Amino acid sequence: MKNPILFYFDFSSPYGYLASLRIDAIASQHGREVAWKPILLGAIFKASGNATLVQQPLKGKYSIHDFARSARWLKAPYQMPSAFPIATQNAARAFYWLNDSDPALAKALAQRLFAVYFAEGRDITSPETVIAEAKALGVDPDKLAAALADQAIKDRLRAEVEKALELGVCGSPYTIVDGEPFWGADRLDQVDAWLKTGGW
Amino acid sequence: MKNPILFYFDFSSPYGYLASLRIDAIASQHGREVAWKPILLGAIFKASGNATLVQQPLKGKYSIHDFARSARWLKAPYQMPSAFPIATQNAARAFYWLNDSDPALAKALAQRLFAVYFAEGRDITSPETVIAEAKALGVDPDKLAAALADQAIKDRLRAEVEKALELGVCGSPYTIVDGEPFWGADRLDQVDAWLKTGGW
Repeated sequence: MKNPILFYFDFSSPYGYLASLRIDAIASQHGREVAWKPILLGAIFKASGNATLVQQPLKGKYSIHDFARSARWLKAPYQMPSAFPIATQNAARAFYWLNDSDPALAKALAQRLFAVYFAEGRDITSPETVIAEAKALGVDPDKLAAALADQAIKDRLRAEVEKALELGVCGSPYTIVDGEPFWGADRLDQVDAWLKTGGW
Repeated sequence: MKNPILFYFDFSSPYGYLASLRIDAIASQHGREVAWKPILLGAIFKASGNATLVQQPLKGKYSIHDFARSARWLKAPYQMPSAFPIATQNAARAFYWLNDSDPALAKALAQRLFAVYFAEGRDITSPETVIAEAKALGVDPDKLAAALADQAIKDRLRAEVEKALELGVCGSPYTIVDGEPFWGADRLDQVDAWLKTGGW
């Protein structure tokens, strides 16, 4: 059994959302699993000296246009959230907590949170929102609330971000296939080809 | 006759080079012409607050890897030039000077300069190199040397860069199809589809 494909993203990343709609289908065509790895782009940008795209002159206006056009290109439901970008610690921590006991359910929660934010345009910053969405999927809300308040899950997310930086993750999405890194939703066709051919 | 597709690039941009190998073939499939528009990324970066990719932490190492992998993906001859990035004023000025009298020859010179830099790995900064390559294509070297020393062509390039900034050009390559902007070599499939469908 090969190692899973690592799929790094921030829940506040439009391109991360768009890639999340395709990555598992691409992997499964080649008999591979995907380990989803939510991270915090703020920490990545601090290391790389970058800022959020939409806050940059010139690139900001283009990016907002490209997010929506790329979504239409993929026929993906999308709207630019009014709150953007947002802090995604609670979403990421809930994911990792759930992932330790039920990876499939954790992925379902991640997909749901992406949909709430980018398809419905609702803010997913607060623990209350994350807990409500998890509860709708059958997660015990009191246990999740307790987990989110625990230092252990904060340390866990910090460790995941540190690991991402060690691996060279410089943006979202960032997909690693057997050590080979692909940055961007627009590299998924190459990810597909890499899985098919073993590289070029 | 529709307006030409605008193809903005810097001669020092690997993704600009890779896109230059495809853009005319894509356009001609839809009966369209391409106006090549060399610019200076330094001026664009000054406006957008960015730096050259390879000089950025994390992104630098990834980018150098991705340049070469993207070239192999496209089966394009490529090597990372030892001098990188370089000042491309002379290349761009020679292009615009030649373009006024012979657009086809100007494009041939641009293609040749890209090949010298990214396929052969030789620096194209100096006026001597640009003039020698132009001469090999049949351009009068004395006339080009005089043109490159003239204030008029310096003003012309500055005006082209200003125009690019007005149009929102935020990187290289940056392709504009009937007002619709596409940033990146990895948007050429969308450019192709946009030309085919008229947009989505």
